[in-house]
Amino acid sequence: MFVYQKKLEYPVRISNPNPALAKIIISQYGGPDGELGASLRYLSQRYSMPYPEIKGLLTDIGTEELGHLEMVGTLVHQLTRNMKDDDVKKAGLETYFVDHTAGVFPQFASGYPWSAATMQVTGDVLADLNEDLAAEQKARVTYDNILRLSDDPDVNNVIRFLREREIVHYQRFGEALRLATDRLDQKNIYAINPAFDK
Amino acid sequence: MFVYQKKLEYPVRISNPNPALAKIIISQYGGPDGELGASLRYLSQRYSMPYPEIKGLLTDIGTEELGHLEMVGTLVHQLTRNMKDDDVKKAGLETYFVDHTAGVFPQFASGYPWSAATMQVTGDVLADLNEDLAAEQKARVTYDNILRLSDDPDVNNVIRFLREREIVHYQRFGEALRLATDRLDQKNIYAINPAFDK
Amino acid sequence: MFVYQKKLEYPVRISNPNPALAKIIISQYGGPDGELGASLRYLSQRYSMPYPEIKGLLTDIGTEELGHLEMVGTLVHQLTRNMKDDDVKKAGLETYFVDHTAGVFPQFASGYPWSAATMQVTGDVLADLNEDLAAEQKARVTYDNILRLSDDPDVNNVIRFLREREIVHYQRFGEALRLATDRLDQKNIYAINPAFDK
Amino acid sequence: MFVYQKKLEYPVRISNPNPALAKIIISQYGGPDGELGASLRYLSQRYSMPYPEIKGLLTDIGTEELGHLEMVGTLVHQLTRNMKDDDVKKAGLETYFVDHTAGVFPQFASGYPWSAATMQVTGDVLADLNEDLAAEQKARVTYDNILRLSDDPDVNNVIRFLREREIVHYQRFGEALRLATDRLDQKNIYAINPAFDK
Amino acid sequence: MFVYQKKLEYPVRISNPNPALAKIIISQYGGPDGELGASLRYLSQRYSMPYPEIKGLLTDIGTEELGHLEMVGTLVHQLTRNMKDDDVKKAGLETYFVDHTAGVFPQFASGYPWSAATMQVTGDVLADLNEDLAAEQKARVTYDNILRLSDDPDVNNVIRFLREREIVHYQRFGEALRLATDRLDQKNIYAINPAFDK
Amino acid sequence: MFVYQKKLEYPVRISNPNPALAKIIISQYGGPDGELGASLRYLSQRYSMPYPEIKGLLTDIGTEELGHLEMVGTLVHQLTRNMKDDDVKKAGLETYFVDHTAGVFPQFASGYPWSAATMQVTGDVLADLNEDLAAEQKARVTYDNILRLSDDPDVNNVIRFLREREIVHYQRFGEALRLATDRLDQKNIYAINPAFDK
Repeated sequence: MFVYQKKLEYPVRISNPNPALAKIIISQYGGPDGELGASLRYLSQRYSMPYPEIKGLLTDIGTEELGHLEMVGTLVHQLTRNMKDDDVKKAGLETYFVDHTAGVFPQFASGYPWSAATMQVTGDVLADLNEDLAAEQKARVTYDNILRLSDDPDVNNVIRFLREREIVHYQRFGEALRLATDRLDQKNIYAINPAFDK
Repeated sequence: MFVYQKKLEYPVRISNPNPALAKIIISQYGGPDGELGASLRYLSQRYSMPYPEIKGLLTDIGTEELGHLEMVGTLVHQLTRNMKDDDVKKAGLETYFVDHTAGVFPQFASGYPWSAATMQVTGDVLADLNEDLAAEQKARVTYDNILRLSDDPDVNNVIRFLREREIVHYQRFGEALRLATDRLDQKNIYAINPAFDK
Repeated sequence: MFVYQKKLEYPVRISNPNPALAKIIISQYGGPDGELGASLRYLSQRYSMPYPEIKGLLTDIGTEELGHLEMVGTLVHQLTRNMKDDDVKKAGLETYFVDHTAGVFPQFASGYPWSAATMQVTGDVLADLNEDLAAEQKARVTYDNILRLSDDPDVNNVIRFLREREIVHYQRFGEALRLATDRLDQKNIYAINPAFDK
Repeated sequence: MFVYQKKLEYPVRISNPNPALAKIIISQYGGPDGELGASLRYLSQRYSMPYPEIKGLLTDIGTEELGHLEMVGTLVHQLTRNMKDDDVKKAGLETYFVDHTAGVFPQFASGYPWSAATMQVTGDVLADLNEDLAAEQKARVTYDNILRLSDDPDVNNVIRFLREREIVHYQRFGEALRLATDRLDQKNIYAINPAFDK
Repeated sequence: MFVYQKKLEYPVRISNPNPALAKIIISQYGGPDGELGASLRYLSQRYSMPYPEIKGLLTDIGTEELGHLEMVGTLVHQLTRNMKDDDVKKAGLETYFVDHTAGVFPQFASGYPWSAATMQVTGDVLADLNEDLAAEQKARVTYDNILRLSDDPDVNNVIRFLREREIVHYQRFGEALRLATDRLDQKNIYAINPAFDK
Repeated sequence: MFVYQKKLEYPVRISNPNPALAKIIISQYGGPDGELGASLRYLSQRYSMPYPEIKGLLTDIGTEELGHLEMVGTLVHQLTRNMKDDDVKKAGLETYFVDHTAGVFPQFASGYPWSAATMQVTGDVLADLNEDLAAEQKARVTYDNILRLSDDPDVNNVIRFLREREIVHYQRFGEALRLATDRLDQKNIYAINPAFDK
């Protein structure tokens, strides 16, 4: 089970609302490579993971990503706070606004509601860990792209923190993949389905 | 942020694997009215909720639902543990198995990957709370239906616990709706968009 | 069965085309909380509704919403009539135009084609009526938001009429919920599945 | 606007419940080529149709398909009426039942909620009418396939009626296409966008 | 099987990058009526097509459309080459850029990832060929609309070539439909399911 | 452009129709980790790939996967050939049959039409190659699972061939990732967006 602590993993304090920026940052809330997908991917994969230390890693990173999801939601909220009608129009946020006002909805930047089709849980150690490595790289690119489009230091500090964490997670999943590969029986390589085979 | 505690809110100990039952219980993991949608709905709505006590309620229930998601994932995992090929066929689980083996994937019972289109965040107090009341009722129906199709006491004890919690949440959201309605300015009734108007 | 009458429930006569406004109003045609979803939700729920007067209410409101869908389609059509290429660009309507020219397509403002995942039919009296109450509130918010972004009186008169109807429907569904709750057997409360149990 | 008449276009009286049959007939309610898509396609295309008689045809057929949708919903309802838990299991209806009990939900037979991505409105006379011809043929195939899997005369009489209507609609749309082609200016052939060009 | 030839069916050489134009042309890559859907539709339908010459036609056109997909991808790539951050913003391409940088992703212009729900394979000669006729008309409209919004001759030459090919394909599918209709047994008309009936 | 050669990369000759097996093999046609997604992913990523040899690799493997898609389509077709109505029911193929008869449609085994949301094109060398490594592993698991559920040697020979190719592709993409990493400037590591930066 999860316990909520009323603080963010890293503080978010935006001085200047900027709905146009919120419009792209929402992709890290509910986009194809955002924090919702990351968290749910790892927290779902752990049930069928046979190695306790990798199961623990999935739980740890999955739980941390829940906290990142909260940070991104906070960014979107602070960037859209106290909008006036004209701000909505200037920012090109009308299509979001008509359905969600200034609420934080898990969607791609384009408006596509988040779908679990963007992630996988295969019940296979090697496939799941490769999926996780790819997820961390794709999240890193998304943060890269936000940094290219934003010049607000209040936002960029937070994005840089989150981006760094993805790189660390990529390294941790790389270690887990090596650990898992070492443990696999020669005959079993590329064929293991641990939850099913044991 | 969230802290993981290595225990379930209510214990899950299934003696008899039953993949056919897992096939319908997965709907409470990633179905249209399952725990993923519940949790994400409440944790997303809280950013634009203007009343601190209702914001706190959304956070509390959203966090509890994360724990329920974990319980449902554990149910699915224990019911599909140690399956043999023939078990898959007997349970009619082939279409799930080919893509996810015995991994726990957030999908409708029919196989539709969970979509955020099943939930809403409107940035409006009254609309969001009505959405939440409906969500709790629909989750309750899903648990009703699982109870009708299952006669495994190990499963049903867990389902009854979860079902009871939905009824409590329904009551809590009902109280919140009354509280919110009382606070609304007469002129503003049915028109409030707190995150936008203040 | 349905009979078409060649008049709108409320007249729509737009003097000034305004494709930028059509871009957000389309959400009431095929958006997450628009008239298509409303109509189909009620007309689908009525089959399993056990109480004749609530079944009649679902049919009446569902049929009226079909007429509202027609009014919204007429709004979108009149606002995009006689567009020139430059009008498309000025209005930021290019992505809609490339696929639908000036046709009226049931989609979210963002371009997501309408999906039945946005609605539910549970076969349960209490869950369905709570779903309906939420639907009316969410539609009301969408109309609120259109009013905030539009200053065309020809449009706003129509939107205000439609918004008023949603509030009336909310009240009617509230009465239906009380009526249904009163009829439920004490033991059965929160557990009824009328189509299945009778 | 639409007026509801409390009778079906063709009577539906099923003597023997048969949930397994309902499971495939639901595809004519909310499947890729079912009555919902047909009705909404025609009723949406009429706004941009420049020729009054074809506009009228789209309205007429679209309205009739609303009545067919009601007939199919009635079929599904009567086939699933008074189910017992065991009936659900014998019919293989568990995945539908867990989410919708015996409610009538607009989905593919596979469980995919109906999506407007299955239809088009292009704002172009020739493209829309070709789309409609294809829709009628695909609906006809769906009815063919239901007839192949069903041997219940109560059901098959209704299906045969509906199938006949699709063939008539195909002929009507074929005539409309010839009429539209005749009217097109030579220079304009294959390039018309009437709502936009006039 | 397929062999790749390192040349385009028709050359694409764009002198002036124009990301705003790429934003709408992407719809011919992965939009509702684009080349991906065309190609996959025909290459999928051929398995159940009983007449060898129509099967060959589906293979030929399906293979050509793969080449058109490549041409459209090349267009999008050349139009977005060497973008600077400011170009992204000026073109209104931020929501695409955040998730795909300048990569070519199969999506609607609105951002909806391509879905096979936009196409059909019915296993029926008449339905499949009507579907194909509609597909060609809808693709033609999409090209019409691109031509209306673009005044770059480098782009328009390519679009005109592709548009011409759709018109030729429409004629070829029309001939195939006549051929198929002629061959159908009188009794069998509108009822054939060749893969199933033979 | 692509040239079609009228032979399969590896022969498919199924002696015994087996629609129940087709029902799961379809996932390699249009499932989350099937050949359609593989092919389209690689053929789409190549536009923004800056290194010619990796661009060539993406083209080669993408083209080969098109041939695999054809082999899987042929498998599904031969397994469902000459079905009788009773075969459809015995195989539990009714929900597929009602919409597609014996046509080959790109869908998940569960019936979800293939969606491009299952793949990514990020315009980033490292992210795209990690995505590709994951794709190959997930495809390998799908083939593993088919082998567990099938005991038809005619099918399994083909599946084993396809599975072997995925393992080879995984190795090739691993080499490409090392090659790309070596070329990256130290400062640029994890931050490259080649199509954008050059």
